[in-house]
Amino acid sequence: MFKQLLQDILTSYNDNPTIEKIKGKNPINKVSVIEMIDKLQALTFPGYFGQRRLNQDTLEYSVGELLEDLAYDLKKQVHRALYPEDGSEGAADHEAESITFNFLSKIAGIRRVLATDVEAFYDGDPAAYNNDEIILSYPGFYALTVNRLAHELYLMGVPMIPRMMTEHAHSLTGIDINPGATIGHHFFMDHGTGIVIGETTIIGDYVKIYQGVTLGALSTRGGQSLKGKKRHPTIEDRVTIYSGASILGGDTIIGEGVVIGSNAFIISSVQENTKVSIKSPNLRFIRNNREAAHELDEEDNWFYMI
Amino acid sequence: MFKQLLQDILTSYNDNPTIEKIKGKNPINKVSVIEMIDKLQALTFPGYFGQRRLNQDTLEYSVGELLEDLAYDLKKQVHRALYPEDGSEGAADHEAESITFNFLSKIAGIRRVLATDVEAFYDGDPAAYNNDEIILSYPGFYALTVNRLAHELYLMGVPMIPRMMTEHAHSLTGIDINPGATIGHHFFMDHGTGIVIGETTIIGDYVKIYQGVTLGALSTRGGQSLKGKKRHPTIEDRVTIYSGASILGGDTIIGEGVVIGSNAFIISSVQENTKVSIKSPNLRFIRNNREAAHELDEEDNWFYMI
Amino acid sequence: MFKQLLQDILTSYNDNPTIEKIKGKNPINKVSVIEMIDKLQALTFPGYFGQRRLNQDTLEYSVGELLEDLAYDLKKQVHRALYPEDGSEGAADHEAESITFNFLSKIAGIRRVLATDVEAFYDGDPAAYNNDEIILSYPGFYALTVNRLAHELYLMGVPMIPRMMTEHAHSLTGIDINPGATIGHHFFMDHGTGIVIGETTIIGDYVKIYQGVTLGALSTRGGQSLKGKKRHPTIEDRVTIYSGASILGGDTIIGEGVVIGSNAFIISSVQENTKVSIKSPNLRFIRNNREAAHELDEEDNWFYMI
Repeated sequence: MFKQLLQDILTSYNDNPTIEKIKGKNPINKVSVIEMIDKLQALTFPGYFGQRRLNQDTLEYSVGELLEDLAYDLKKQVHRALYPEDGSEGAADHEAESITFNFLSKIAGIRRVLATDVEAFYDGDPAAYNNDEIILSYPGFYALTVNRLAHELYLMGVPMIPRMMTEHAHSLTGIDINPGATIGHHFFMDHGTGIVIGETTIIGDYVKIYQGVTLGALSTRGGQSLKGKKRHPTIEDRVTIYSGASILGGDTIIGEGVVIGSNAFIISSVQENTKVSIKSPNLRFIRNNREAAHELDEEDNWFYMI
Repeated sequence: MFKQLLQDILTSYNDNPTIEKIKGKNPINKVSVIEMIDKLQALTFPGYFGQRRLNQDTLEYSVGELLEDLAYDLKKQVHRALYPEDGSEGAADHEAESITFNFLSKIAGIRRVLATDVEAFYDGDPAAYNNDEIILSYPGFYALTVNRLAHELYLMGVPMIPRMMTEHAHSLTGIDINPGATIGHHFFMDHGTGIVIGETTIIGDYVKIYQGVTLGALSTRGGQSLKGKKRHPTIEDRVTIYSGASILGGDTIIGEGVVIGSNAFIISSVQENTKVSIKSPNLRFIRNNREAAHELDEEDNWFYMI
Repeated sequence: MFKQLLQDILTSYNDNPTIEKIKGKNPINKVSVIEMIDKLQALTFPGYFGQRRLNQDTLEYSVGELLEDLAYDLKKQVHRALYPEDGSEGAADHEAESITFNFLSKIAGIRRVLATDVEAFYDGDPAAYNNDEIILSYPGFYALTVNRLAHELYLMGVPMIPRMMTEHAHSLTGIDINPGATIGHHFFMDHGTGIVIGETTIIGDYVKIYQGVTLGALSTRGGQSLKGKKRHPTIEDRVTIYSGASILGGDTIIGEGVVIGSNAFIISSVQENTKVSIKSPNLRFIRNNREAAHELDEEDNWFYMI
């Protein structure tokens, strides 16, 4: 019985080869990619996440060791992502090394931007205790960190790994930011669950986004034929987008200083410094099985900033 | 002080026995169930997730070993799920073995369907790079895989384990598919966070669903008295349901080829080949503290496919 | 090249000191905090989560050992949270010990309330098989357990750790409950993904909440100046809030027995025993490229309980 079962499964591998990778010479190792995210986080925020305490005297050695580890692992996986069918060393290997060093040289710049993000998170949330709390526990800050790192690899044309990184963050936070999305400094996301930011989204500086916001495509009926086209909106500086709002389409530009109210559905551009709000659906109140008077006056039904 | 503390906790175990399982002879091991999901994933997509590379020469041995492991673990937990108070071998053990083999014999068929799902995911998402990316990193594909596996155990009447499997996937993806839900081939979910698919939902072939969609019950006021009743909708072939829509009720049938627009709220059946859209709430634009003209004409407020 | 890279990163640590903690004498260990959550779960629900089976004869010893472990770890991290710059023993250490014992003495009381929650989860969900399934696999029950534990530490004025605990639960469940939120007994959350419950929310007994509900602030424009103010609503006994509803503002009181329908947006108080529902946005049906008759009569567009 067991023999038959095994044989059926092996036959199934032959019958459905699009979902097996048995002969893949050089498959990407998902566990290794996730470990790299952890190491990148430790490198980016020294003293917060490592198992050992750091100290100034031995800092160079411990950071050097971490960096060496990371370079080794990353080079290996980049090689695999670029040449999944090539197990050899040589030119491909040299290319992977060059991308790896190029990527790691971006870390200092990424840290500069992340320092502005921590400020934005602290200023934006009355429940924030201090920077440490944000770095150690805010899901929005984690998803943003991973996006900023993955985006650099995306720009260098590395396939697979950037998306694996952001989907790992998606899994841990409920925030789905495609590694292609470009995000300015002082970015803030609160609560975060359900946020979707598409591949060709461009976001300016000092932007704030709340839970459940979609920055998406107007239609994906075109499927793969839309690849590479700008399908997602442009959000200019100092825009705030409250919970549950959707902003859709590659030609949609949300101008500087705009505030988009909760649950608004926007499919065309909005001029700068505009406040957009929805008329909330009418409410009906029933008490003692009878209709009760509406307790809100008309004006209360328009929401600007929530 | 420590002795008193310990005593208070032990007393509490006596006082609230509905949330302890001290005398449970045969408790399900959650860690083992989660490990089984990982092993099932490795068995279903050979070469993608294992720590070792596979090769054709030794394939039979390595797959055989994995299958044997899985059969052993699964039989043990199925036994516990069926007979939580029975630690003995015998008839119960034989039943668990028979279910285990029956379940494992479904893997080849599940792979056939998953091969169609990978196609649907690739065709539906312009941001998808290739099949490998979908299998390695798409949360919707992971949640679907776990549902297809757990659903077979659900059909065999195994309690607890199917729900533990899908709730693990829920935890990793934000997608909550009850193991009871029946799902046709070529199924596609994009982004996924917030999707809820209830126990008695029936979904046809070539269906697409976006983030935040609920396929739910119209009311759960009846609580446990509703157990086993069809409480969730039927979705026929080639239906597309855009983000944030809710479709509710056990008598609600969404006919073949229907498109449900973003945020629609549907509580009765829709005839085949209909496009349903909501009139989006009116928007108000304020600029320089004055009301600005609505920039959308009336028609723009109706959305079909987003 | 590697030397230069390392030097640039070390320079970056100097340049952006707000996101490094190299000289932190006493940093909180995130891994240890997460392990404590697991140990607290094992202590609270004995027999469900531990790797070893418990039995009545050796119960005192195994629970005693777990409790001792927990007390040791918790004291260490509480010390670090209270005095991040003080590595010494002494008065601070004594304070941490006193908080630790005070906290652990709350476990019996927390268990009493959690026993009522299991009842509420079972009664509220026709898909629930038994208590074990709820305790082992329901994300809403997990998030609630972690909130009830973290809330006690929050009340004792311990910084950082309570939020790290609830954000860990947020990560695993998509449910974001601030540790400051006060929640009565017999609380039930279904599906859960996307639920946000803010820091100063007060929730009574027998309350039910569905996926995507926000109990939030009316505006956070004030940022840190709002710290400590009541910004989130009060929900009285026996209130039910259906999926996607938002209830906002520190002065908003939802009276006893109120039912808030799906997707309602509430920014002012609601009197007791009222059913609030939204008029669902109008639907348009297109078939064969022509407008089809609305199949719903007007009354169907008002939803009470979904």
